Amino acid sequence: MKQEVNIMEDGFKGNMAPTVVSMLKIKNECIRVVLAETLCTFIMMVFGLGCVAQVVTGNGFFGEYLSINIGFGLSVAMGVHIGGKVSGAHMNAAVSFTMCLLGRLRWKMLPLYVFAQFLGSFLAAGTVFSLYYDAIYHYCGGNFTVSGPKATAGIFATYPAPYISIYTGFFDQVLGTAMLLLCLMALADQRNQPVVAGGEPVGVGLVVLLIGVSLGSNSGYAINPTRDLGPRVFTLMAGWGMEVFRAGNGWWWVPLVAPFIGGVTGALIYKAFVELHHPDLKSTKTRSTEDPECVPLEKCKNGSTEISVCSS
Amino acid sequence: MKQEVNIMEDGFKGNMAPTVVSMLKIKNECIRVVLAETLCTFIMMVFGLGCVAQVVTGNGFFGEYLSINIGFGLSVAMGVHIGGKVSGAHMNAAVSFTMCLLGRLRWKMLPLYVFAQFLGSFLAAGTVFSLYYDAIYHYCGGNFTVSGPKATAGIFATYPAPYISIYTGFFDQVLGTAMLLLCLMALADQRNQPVVAGGEPVGVGLVVLLIGVSLGSNSGYAINPTRDLGPRVFTLMAGWGMEVFRAGNGWWWVPLVAPFIGGVTGALIYKAFVELHHPDLKSTKTRSTEDPECVPLEKCKNGSTEISVCSS
Amino acid sequence: MKQEVNIMEDGFKGNMAPTVVSMLKIKNECIRVVLAETLCTFIMMVFGLGCVAQVVTGNGFFGEYLSINIGFGLSVAMGVHIGGKVSGAHMNAAVSFTMCLLGRLRWKMLPLYVFAQFLGSFLAAGTVFSLYYDAIYHYCGGNFTVSGPKATAGIFATYPAPYISIYTGFFDQVLGTAMLLLCLMALADQRNQPVVAGGEPVGVGLVVLLIGVSLGSNSGYAINPTRDLGPRVFTLMAGWGMEVFRAGNGWWWVPLVAPFIGGVTGALIYKAFVELHHPDLKSTKTRSTEDPECVPLEKCKNGSTEISVCSS
Amino acid sequence: MKQEVNIMEDGFKGNMAPTVVSMLKIKNECIRVVLAETLCTFIMMVFGLGCVAQVVTGNGFFGEYLSINIGFGLSVAMGVHIGGKVSGAHMNAAVSFTMCLLGRLRWKMLPLYVFAQFLGSFLAAGTVFSLYYDAIYHYCGGNFTVSGPKATAGIFATYPAPYISIYTGFFDQVLGTAMLLLCLMALADQRNQPVVAGGEPVGVGLVVLLIGVSLGSNSGYAINPTRDLGPRVFTLMAGWGMEVFRAGNGWWWVPLVAPFIGGVTGALIYKAFVELHHPDLKSTKTRSTEDPECVPLEKCKNGSTEISVCSS
Repeated sequence: MKQEVNIMEDGFKGNMAPTVVSMLKIKNECIRVVLAETLCTFIMMVFGLGCVAQVVTGNGFFGEYLSINIGFGLSVAMGVHIGGKVSGAHMNAAVSFTMCLLGRLRWKMLPLYVFAQFLGSFLAAGTVFSLYYDAIYHYCGGNFTVSGPKATAGIFATYPAPYISIYTGFFDQVLGTAMLLLCLMALADQRNQPVVAGGEPVGVGLVVLLIGVSLGSNSGYAINPTRDLGPRVFTLMAGWGMEVFRAGNGWWWVPLVAPFIGGVTGALIYKAFVELHHPDLKSTKTRSTEDPECVPLEKCKNGSTEISVCSS
Repeated sequence: MKQEVNIMEDGFKGNMAPTVVSMLKIKNECIRVVLAETLCTFIMMVFGLGCVAQVVTGNGFFGEYLSINIGFGLSVAMGVHIGGKVSGAHMNAAVSFTMCLLGRLRWKMLPLYVFAQFLGSFLAAGTVFSLYYDAIYHYCGGNFTVSGPKATAGIFATYPAPYISIYTGFFDQVLGTAMLLLCLMALADQRNQPVVAGGEPVGVGLVVLLIGVSLGSNSGYAINPTRDLGPRVFTLMAGWGMEVFRAGNGWWWVPLVAPFIGGVTGALIYKAFVELHHPDLKSTKTRSTEDPECVPLEKCKNGSTEISVCSS
Repeated sequence: MKQEVNIMEDGFKGNMAPTVVSMLKIKNECIRVVLAETLCTFIMMVFGLGCVAQVVTGNGFFGEYLSINIGFGLSVAMGVHIGGKVSGAHMNAAVSFTMCLLGRLRWKMLPLYVFAQFLGSFLAAGTVFSLYYDAIYHYCGGNFTVSGPKATAGIFATYPAPYISIYTGFFDQVLGTAMLLLCLMALADQRNQPVVAGGEPVGVGLVVLLIGVSLGSNSGYAINPTRDLGPRVFTLMAGWGMEVFRAGNGWWWVPLVAPFIGGVTGALIYKAFVELHHPDLKSTKTRSTEDPECVPLEKCKNGSTEISVCSS
Repeated sequence: MKQEVNIMEDGFKGNMAPTVVSMLKIKNECIRVVLAETLCTFIMMVFGLGCVAQVVTGNGFFGEYLSINIGFGLSVAMGVHIGGKVSGAHMNAAVSFTMCLLGRLRWKMLPLYVFAQFLGSFLAAGTVFSLYYDAIYHYCGGNFTVSGPKATAGIFATYPAPYISIYTGFFDQVLGTAMLLLCLMALADQRNQPVVAGGEPVGVGLVVLLIGVSLGSNSGYAINPTRDLGPRVFTLMAGWGMEVFRAGNGWWWVPLVAPFIGGVTGALIYKAFVELHHPDLKSTKTRSTEDPECVPLEKCKNGSTEISVCSS
């Protein structure tokens, strides 16, 4: 696939006049970020919800719980490939929020990220609904329910196991998101044992796979407010009704609130136990000096230099 | 395995006279490409169809649906290793078509690619049929059928689930191929978060694994016209009869047509949402300047200038 | 995720006064090591025990034995990411002991490692107990037993299969730990075919996955004294009672003792068969000269000279 | 695990007098190669046979067919880590034979490789027999049989499915080994799309995993004469009797003979379709010039220079 890469721009110019290309080119950093974050969240969620739909409607023939875990992990990895260097591919409002709190993302970008993530998740739910409509209809006989033996709402949003109390469920979401952010901090800590350069997407995917096989059975490891709310709103509109907000003793707000607490907690625990105590920053060569273009979002801090995010 | 690599050519010369080696050597770039594309498609399809044959005839003892997903993903990865730098290892007419449209492959090469891919797929179907003939015969009692509880045609070509309408099936193939090409574009985009250099085969394999666990149950994720038609023609001749073209309400044309639409759509969506808006091409160092030999396909031209893509 | 990394410290300073950061910073190397070793063992064990809890209480719906194998492998990989360059992320007293014997860790550090590993494992058992309390209670009807059809003690500590003699079990633990250390030695041997730089966490995780799918069924592959004892003591206190020490004919001491023998044996076998005979050390460029900061553990000494291992 | 590496030699000298180390050090290249090849084959086979034993005796509780595929793939990867740069870690007489034929290994080394591989496989069978004796005994009630519902001979050597003719079985072994060698050639071809440097062990492991999920059900994918014969002889002696040579219509000679034919065929097909036609060797920079120490085995060709293999 290598040779396809390098001549891309030339070839494209060969097809379209360069002026058209430059006309279409968006230079506003905020719009670029929103486009990328929406697309990567959309792709991640189409793949991810597709895995659940396939296993649920497949009656054990088209995969198993482990397929969902592997699929969701790879979905996140592909999302990071798609949005990685443009928006950071958070795809998760709890990640964006934690990044803001740590000073790695400006607060005024947060609403844009949340909007893009919600939009991507919502559109992905609609796409998966269209794609698997026949299969879902065939599976449940056209009766879209939130609970019971042929429940299908769980394809889109998460619901707790019937034996889980709301306290356990809240702790489950706090812990899961804390583990996610703690691992992400470690994977990215260049003064510790980070993931190999270029392997970030797969590294993040493996964390999500691990959370799935380890912390998934209580409530379906949403660990992501936007991933959960977008599809839930879609199912509300698509025929499952208000039950999607009532089910699980009003479960819907838990994956909306708990991940914010968990994300910050996990990141701070990693800082408190490991990162804060790294010896002697100056003598350690970090990657930032070698590769200064890795920090696109922050170049716009005071708006002075060339790329000025959100100057609109 | 390292030390086996470096002394290969010397050792080979030690066995054969250098003149013989140079006599056998094919310098015509088109023939080289056809040979490599045929071989990598053949190997990919032998492995891939072998996975399905093993699971179908194994009655649940020799693997499961996830085995097929993992196997097909690895099959594609091995194909990329085999054909990678020679033909690009498209192994998929929809990929080749999209590459032409993007200006990364000359249009006059397209028929050669399609021919090689069809030939490789057809021969692979024959090989797997020979290899698993005893197992297939034992499984279905010698009665080769396209549908029913002991259907075996699905080992070779894809068929839709019985509850899928032709519209859903068409959308399924468009979407699946769009996701494939969109992810391939992202994996190869050196100004974003590409797959680590040298990891392209595994990266592409993971995309195919992901499509299998996520978008596979509707119609068996052909997402590839040549992968599907070659084995279908083979089964027509090998005893399954005209039913392979009639089944699924005349399904056969869907994986033949829809992937072209999907492939182009996916690639253009990635361009529209991400690639087109990358800031400032010149200041970004791409790999093409460092590694100019990555564009072998273009050497196949009449040989006058270095690279002049799409001058046809 | 890249851009989140580089500006971390600046952003953090933007939120907190630099003096506060430097006040919180722990410069004592021993405390740093204990903090990191405790955290990485804790995270590894929360993920690992979580996998078992999910599969046991899931009644076949939330994963299978392979899920546990994959999950425990990834858990160890994440532990190495978290503790890697600070404490070495042994997470296993048998590993620490072998490192001492090989002169790679000072003996006076051993109690600190064992303490941290026990603490991390114990706290992880408590965390998983809290997280899966509802699920465990629902699974066994509130009757916490060590054996029988609804036994749940095996979620936390390991127990032998009923048909295993104590001799076989002891051999099982010796062999498993020997295989672990032998592979770790090979993965780290820069004059052989080591794991690719930066891939150490995944490499170690794959070894643990392999041990799980290959040497797991006899007694649950503890191969780790601290991983086993901490959760066992927790279950003693949490309601399973003294039976956790009586079960399996007094099994508890086997994973406590055998791994030390196995670890040393495995490491010495690798030395005797391979490492000792590498030709000509001086002419081989090792990574140590390029990357002298890879030996942080030794800085913990009284601080006089650079590296003087095992002067105790 | 990084910091454990670098100070290894120093620390070891701290424990033992340097003179003792140098006394134990074997400088004869042949003995070094035999030691490494025996150890890596032994470890590979203990892990590999362990996977089969666990799944067979586990009655579906301790893994599935996919576990065996994953386990055998990882076993081979670990073997390559252990023997890689010393003996090349062929672990397979068909691989060694093909390397000789291609001029990458001297013919007089072949018997040493075959001896080491047989010895390692035989010892591994004994080790796995000891480790799983209780489990095997419990599974089959002490009645060690080669066929039937509680057959256990298949843990150690391979046997064909009952519906496979000897012709299909022979083709199965030829094809499987051809696919193995063809992929190995591609993974190692530095002028094509080789596996990333340092990733060879995992790359080879993925090929074996792929063969397992794709070409495994006919006869258990031995694709390796020594892997099959050693354990078969062991089972003959350990209580399964002469039936291990009679079963499958005298199957035992097929995995002994067919892999040699297949290995050479696969390697030549790759050469004929791809490698022979690479353009212009001299202008392509291969790794051999940068890293001349990667060819240890061949330095002894005329015995003149420092390392002289087989001068004994």
